[in-house]
Amino acid sequence: MNKDKVQIFDTTLRDGEQVPGCKLNTEQKLVIADRLDQLGVDIIEAGFPISSPGDFSSVSEISKIVKNATVCGLTRAVKKDIEVAAEALRYAKRPRIHTGIGTSDSHIKYKFNASREEIIQRAVDAVSYAKSFVEDVEFYAEDAGRTDNEFLARVCEAVVKVGATVLNIPDTTGYCLPEEYGAKIKYLKENVKGIDKAILSCHCHNDLGLATANSIAGVINGARQIECTINGIGERAGNTSLEEVVMILRQHPDLNLDTNINSKLLYDTSLMVSNSMCMPVQPNKAIVGANAFAHSSGIHQDGVIKNRETYEIINPEDVGVTESAIVLTARSGRAALAYRAKKVGYDLTKLQLDIVYQEFLKFADKRKEVMDNDIHFIVEESKLNEINFA
Amino acid sequence: MNKDKVQIFDTTLRDGEQVPGCKLNTEQKLVIADRLDQLGVDIIEAGFPISSPGDFSSVSEISKIVKNATVCGLTRAVKKDIEVAAEALRYAKRPRIHTGIGTSDSHIKYKFNASREEIIQRAVDAVSYAKSFVEDVEFYAEDAGRTDNEFLARVCEAVVKVGATVLNIPDTTGYCLPEEYGAKIKYLKENVKGIDKAILSCHCHNDLGLATANSIAGVINGARQIECTINGIGERAGNTSLEEVVMILRQHPDLNLDTNINSKLLYDTSLMVSNSMCMPVQPNKAIVGANAFAHSSGIHQDGVIKNRETYEIINPEDVGVTESAIVLTARSGRAALAYRAKKVGYDLTKLQLDIVYQEFLKFADKRKEVMDNDIHFIVEESKLNEINFA
Repeated sequence: MNKDKVQIFDTTLRDGEQVPGCKLNTEQKLVIADRLDQLGVDIIEAGFPISSPGDFSSVSEISKIVKNATVCGLTRAVKKDIEVAAEALRYAKRPRIHTGIGTSDSHIKYKFNASREEIIQRAVDAVSYAKSFVEDVEFYAEDAGRTDNEFLARVCEAVVKVGATVLNIPDTTGYCLPEEYGAKIKYLKENVKGIDKAILSCHCHNDLGLATANSIAGVINGARQIECTINGIGERAGNTSLEEVVMILRQHPDLNLDTNINSKLLYDTSLMVSNSMCMPVQPNKAIVGANAFAHSSGIHQDGVIKNRETYEIINPEDVGVTESAIVLTARSGRAALAYRAKKVGYDLTKLQLDIVYQEFLKFADKRKEVMDNDIHFIVEESKLNEINFA
Repeated sequence: MNKDKVQIFDTTLRDGEQVPGCKLNTEQKLVIADRLDQLGVDIIEAGFPISSPGDFSSVSEISKIVKNATVCGLTRAVKKDIEVAAEALRYAKRPRIHTGIGTSDSHIKYKFNASREEIIQRAVDAVSYAKSFVEDVEFYAEDAGRTDNEFLARVCEAVVKVGATVLNIPDTTGYCLPEEYGAKIKYLKENVKGIDKAILSCHCHNDLGLATANSIAGVINGARQIECTINGIGERAGNTSLEEVVMILRQHPDLNLDTNINSKLLYDTSLMVSNSMCMPVQPNKAIVGANAFAHSSGIHQDGVIKNRETYEIINPEDVGVTESAIVLTARSGRAALAYRAKKVGYDLTKLQLDIVYQEFLKFADKRKEVMDNDIHFIVEESKLNEINFA
């Protein structure tokens, strides 16, 4: 059965780059854009062209080199922004303008000092104007997470009518719960006239640690695009992690959804982005953290060694990690020690293992990690020969 | 209206510590245990006493110093484990033994080479034996996430009958989706006879980035304990983040659930654990990351300055972060520049701001971040006086 495709809209170079201290120069952006294109993302949001001369030139240069993905530029619902974005995207094979406006009462009142009707008009004007430059126009309803569903549906209906191809429903503040975000997407899918002419898109922030779960709730309820970044980087607590949503869909075939991502490039891409942005990935980061596939506890190691599938769900090779390391610490059990000891040349009997394990625990209690070299020392300290001959 | 209490079971010192390279010594564990007690966690899982002499002594020493929290020790469903745990917990004011066994077919077959009936018997025997030492006995059904609900309910019923006070339903592999995990808790709540005599507990792993969402789905569906760690540390991609679940419940009063956590200690506790374990927290970590409350993009800064509530949902002070920094980068807008310029002494007119902003953009395009000191330089370069007198 053919799975439904979820489009991956990568915004590492736009929303992801809005991180204090992590600005990339144009050359760095070109290297990452090229890699994202190889990774198989469907859309690369390359920048916010009017925001600075550097951003304009990055969008323009990226447009020239990207072969497969759509290249997208962000704008506010402002004529000048749209003109500048269109200019920056001039060389893109598949250009997309991403325009929009805040739709929550808080944004309408404090940011725009406008009325709901005025906001709809500005949204429609922006999309119509963007359509005069490119065919593919995505509309964002900023702070959609806190916009009431009925008004949000009216805004969506109005922009679809003038040709918006994608409707981005951002949980700008990262406040939604998955049930709530899923219900919002479902409401729009069911209540916006002409919704079959556009794709609903999830754009979630991670302020409460729920960006991934919200995006998945979104696609389960009918969205078909996820906006995300490598390593989940982005302003504040960041955006949805590309690697997480991709692997969730792949590990849950029953959802009947998939992406075009070549997952074997995930780990390398994660390293590339982390290094160029000087944004460390914590060891316990899902999918791409240094420890994501490392096991140290005795109970677990025993299980992994008996049958990898007992504990590991993802095959590390599927995301480009070549071997799941069995790491020895004071938490490790006999099975793990025996496994590693065998790897370095000691095929221990049960009795021998008991003795070496006691020595191992004394040693390991003083160290953070026991390395292969240490095993030789521990075996020597265990004085197996003396015992065997006793 | 009184909110239902969700117990916070902190396993930073047990499951959290099962991280390659992050072993703590007893003194470090005592400092953290004392802090967890102040933070207001309900249960401190202090270690796995039989696993090593160091772990035994940590559990024993922690038992002596903790004033308010229950102190818990982990065991397998093995007599010797339970005896050693009881001994280690001897000085605890409120001791709890945490015992259990794998219940998924994969665990039963590959790890125990046993039948379902044998597993139930071992579970019952372990709980009964633990009850002979302490009143408070928690049972874990390892790999519950992949155990079929009907069999899981039978196991739970059997152990509740012999006095288990808490039923831990671990998603050991971090594989469940929130809907699925919530449905599992709901099923147990509705189908286990005598379930009102015990508390259901969520123990989730973050392999797919869903630990927090799964735990929240669990308590929405009737669980009343969450097992978690500071910074979400733990083996592989780690455990549920304590700080995330606590703040989700606090930011969503409509869920009518709360914890005893003093959230103002969250940030400091995060730093303490990160430093003692040498486990860095990535800047984009929710709630406790260095950037969690920092804004750099022009659109967003404008909103924050006009009304903090437009973008920030959590008041940084509530988690012990004293001020949300407005960070200037090439992405920043005029409003942010004017705000920071004013803070360092320049009250710019609109015309002046236009000029300084152009200078700022040229400068910022070459830097990762623009500091307060740089503003003086930028204003000087803008030659406002010459222009004003022209």
